[in-house]
Amino acid sequence: MNILVINAGSSSVKYQLFNMDNATVLAKGRVERIGMDSAILLHEPSGKPDFHKVDEILEHTTAIRRVLDVLVHPEHGVLASTSEIDAVGHRVVHGGESFKSSVLVTDEVKKEIRRLFDLAPLHNPAHMLGISAVEANMPDVPQAVVFDTAFHQSMPAKAYLYPVPMALYRKHKVRRYGFHGTSHKYVSERAAAFLGRPLAQLKLVTCHIGNGASCAAVQGGQSVDTSMGMTPLEGLMMGTRSGDLDPAIVPYVMGKEDLTIGEVSSMLNKHSGLQAISGISSDMREIVEAREAGDKNATLAFDMYTYRLRKYIGAYTAAMNGVDAIVFTAGVGENSEALRQVVCEGLSFLGVDFDAEANRQGRGMEKRITKEGSRVEVLVIPTNEEWVIAQDTYGLVLAAKG
Amino acid sequence: MNILVINAGSSSVKYQLFNMDNATVLAKGRVERIGMDSAILLHEPSGKPDFHKVDEILEHTTAIRRVLDVLVHPEHGVLASTSEIDAVGHRVVHGGESFKSSVLVTDEVKKEIRRLFDLAPLHNPAHMLGISAVEANMPDVPQAVVFDTAFHQSMPAKAYLYPVPMALYRKHKVRRYGFHGTSHKYVSERAAAFLGRPLAQLKLVTCHIGNGASCAAVQGGQSVDTSMGMTPLEGLMMGTRSGDLDPAIVPYVMGKEDLTIGEVSSMLNKHSGLQAISGISSDMREIVEAREAGDKNATLAFDMYTYRLRKYIGAYTAAMNGVDAIVFTAGVGENSEALRQVVCEGLSFLGVDFDAEANRQGRGMEKRITKEGSRVEVLVIPTNEEWVIAQDTYGLVLAAKG
Repeated sequence: MNILVINAGSSSVKYQLFNMDNATVLAKGRVERIGMDSAILLHEPSGKPDFHKVDEILEHTTAIRRVLDVLVHPEHGVLASTSEIDAVGHRVVHGGESFKSSVLVTDEVKKEIRRLFDLAPLHNPAHMLGISAVEANMPDVPQAVVFDTAFHQSMPAKAYLYPVPMALYRKHKVRRYGFHGTSHKYVSERAAAFLGRPLAQLKLVTCHIGNGASCAAVQGGQSVDTSMGMTPLEGLMMGTRSGDLDPAIVPYVMGKEDLTIGEVSSMLNKHSGLQAISGISSDMREIVEAREAGDKNATLAFDMYTYRLRKYIGAYTAAMNGVDAIVFTAGVGENSEALRQVVCEGLSFLGVDFDAEANRQGRGMEKRITKEGSRVEVLVIPTNEEWVIAQDTYGLVLAAKG
Repeated sequence: MNILVINAGSSSVKYQLFNMDNATVLAKGRVERIGMDSAILLHEPSGKPDFHKVDEILEHTTAIRRVLDVLVHPEHGVLASTSEIDAVGHRVVHGGESFKSSVLVTDEVKKEIRRLFDLAPLHNPAHMLGISAVEANMPDVPQAVVFDTAFHQSMPAKAYLYPVPMALYRKHKVRRYGFHGTSHKYVSERAAAFLGRPLAQLKLVTCHIGNGASCAAVQGGQSVDTSMGMTPLEGLMMGTRSGDLDPAIVPYVMGKEDLTIGEVSSMLNKHSGLQAISGISSDMREIVEAREAGDKNATLAFDMYTYRLRKYIGAYTAAMNGVDAIVFTAGVGENSEALRQVVCEGLSFLGVDFDAEANRQGRGMEKRITKEGSRVEVLVIPTNEEWVIAQDTYGLVLAAKG
C-alpha cells in the first residue's frame, strides 16, 4: 500500500510518499509560494535526481495536481499511475477537544475542523485547503487526518486548565492543548524500544526542540503535561517566539507602545525568542557559532534558551515524581551537541551522568548520551512525524476495510 | 531604640512598633478605609487590651497622626512621647533596578521611587503617601525604605530577562523583578540557622505562599530566580491571580470579550486563581474545607494550585542543579498541612522523606517536616517581614550615626 502524506500551509504544500509494505520513502518534496509570482515545486524522488520547476500555481488544488503529476512523471516520477496511491494522510495542527486520535476524513470531521479555525487561524484553514484539493483531484481515495494536539488529550484537568474564569473555557475553549503531539508520541515509543522497556512503565520527558519547541511529560505512554498551551506560543523560548512571560507584560506593552492585539501577537510570535535576544538569528546553529566566537548577545540567548529548557525538565520530573529518560528530538534537539551538553550537565542532581563523547557521535542515529549506569538516561531520537501520519492513515484504512 | 514599621496602601496603613534592644513588639495595628466614610483604627498594644475606633480619616497624614496619637495614648499607648520613636521603616513594593538593598530616605530616593510609579502603579504611590505623612508628622525622624524587589536583584540576566525584543527592557524596564524578597531573604537566613549550616553553602527553594505567592531559588544566600516577574501576576497560581498562562490568551480573550487593557488585567489579577476555579473562595482554608467535604471544583482548584507549586520546586531545583532544603512560609505555607503534604509527597524522587506527623505539629513554630536522614529537608518557617524592615532600618540608622 502506498500512502501520500500532506502537510498543507497557507502558501505551501509539503508531501512525502511512503510504500508501507517495505516502509520506504518513494519520494518527497514541496510546493512553495502558492498564489505568488513564480511558485516552485521541489521534488526528491528516491533513487533519481532531484527536480525542481518554477510554475504558476495560484491555489492548493493546482498545487496538489502538480504533485500528483510529478509523482507519475515518466522521468521524475516514482509511480505508473496515481491510482497506486491508496490513501492520503494530512497533518492537522489543531484538533481541539474533539479529536483524541487520528480519524478518516468525513463530512462531520471536516465540519469539526472548520469549527476549530478560531483556535488555529493560521493553520487549520490551510489544512482544509489541502484536504479539499486532494478530494478534488482524487475523489475516491480515502483521507485521514492526524492532529498535533491529539496525543496530549490524555492530560488531566489540573494540567490542561488555566487558573482563569471557567467561563473562558466553556465559552471560548481556553485551555492547554499542546502541540507536536505526533512527535512526542513517536519518540516516546522509540525510546521505550531503544531502552528495551515497556512504555507503560516509563516516565519520560520528551523535548521536541526545533524552530518551534515543546517539552512533554509522558507517563506510561500518555502525555500528562506539555509546555505549549492554548497556542504554540507558551512554554519554551523558541526561534522567534517568546514562550513563557509574565502575562501582565502583554497589556503593559500594548499600552506603552499603543499596539493592537494583532501587533502584540506578532511581536511575541515572530520577533521574540532567540532572534530578539541575540539580534543575530532565530537559528540555533548560528547562535552556537556566534557564541563560540565570543558574541555576548548570542551567549545570553543560548543561556536563556537552555536555562528555560532545563527548568522545564525539572518541572516535568516533579510533575511525574521522577523520570526514567529524557529524550531530545527535532532539528535543534537532534543536532545541537552544545545545547544537549549544557542542559544535561545541569541535571546531574537527577542522576544524569552525561557522556560527552557519545553526545558528539552518530549524528542522525538513535543514541544514548549518558554513561553506562546513569540513573536517568538521556536519548537522542530523530523524529519522523510523516511516518507516524502514514502509519496512522494505514491503520485507519485497513480497519475501515474490515 | 524603638522603630516604627509602616506598610502604607492606597486606603490603609499597617504599623508595628519594635523595641530593638530586646527585640519585642510594643504594639501593632492598622488604619483601614482611609478616605471613606467611617475609617477605622485597630490597635493592639502589647500587654494591654486591643482598641478600635471609628473615625473620619481622609488622607494618610491624618492616618499617621492617629497612629502616633494612639501609641502615646495614656490608656492604650505604649510610649510616653513620640520622641521615643527613633526611626521609621517603610515597606516599598517596587525598587526596580535602582535599589539592591534597603536605604535611608533622601530627596534622591524619593525621586527614584516616584520614577518607579509606572512599574507598581497600585503600590508605590501609596508608599510615597506613607513616607510623606510620616515626614509631615515627624520631620526629624530618620526614615528607611525596604524593597520587596531588592533581594532578587542578584538574579543573573538569563533569569531576569524575558525573550522579547530588547527594546522593551531598555525603553520600558520590562524584566523580571520578583517580589516578597524580604520574606524570601528572611526565611533563607532562618533556614540556614535552623539547619546549623552556612547559608553560603546551601541551595534552597523558598515558597512564600500567602494570598499572593512566589517561589525563589536561593543559592548561597542569593536569589538566583523567582516566580513573580515584572509584576506580581506571574508564577504560581494564587488566591485571585492566575499566575502563568499562555501569553496568547491575553490578546485572544481581549478580542473575544472586547476587553480593555484594564479589564483584562483586572480579570487576571482579581478574578482568577483559586477563586475562579473553585467558585467558592480565594482563601485556601475554605478551599481545603470544601475539598474535604468532597466539593469537586474546590478539589480541582487545590490540585491545580499544588501541582503548579510542585512544578516550580522541580524547576528551581533544576535551575540550581540540586536542592538542600525546601522552605514553606506565609499564611498558606505556614498553616496548610494539606498543601504541604500533597506537595512534598510528590517530591520523593528528590529524596524528600516526608514526615506526616511532624507536619501536623507545632503550628507557628520553625520546624522540620521531613524524617531524620531525608536527603532533602523540608522546613516550615514563619516569616516576619516587619522584623526584617525594622532590622534593616536599625542597621541603616546606626551606620548613619557612624
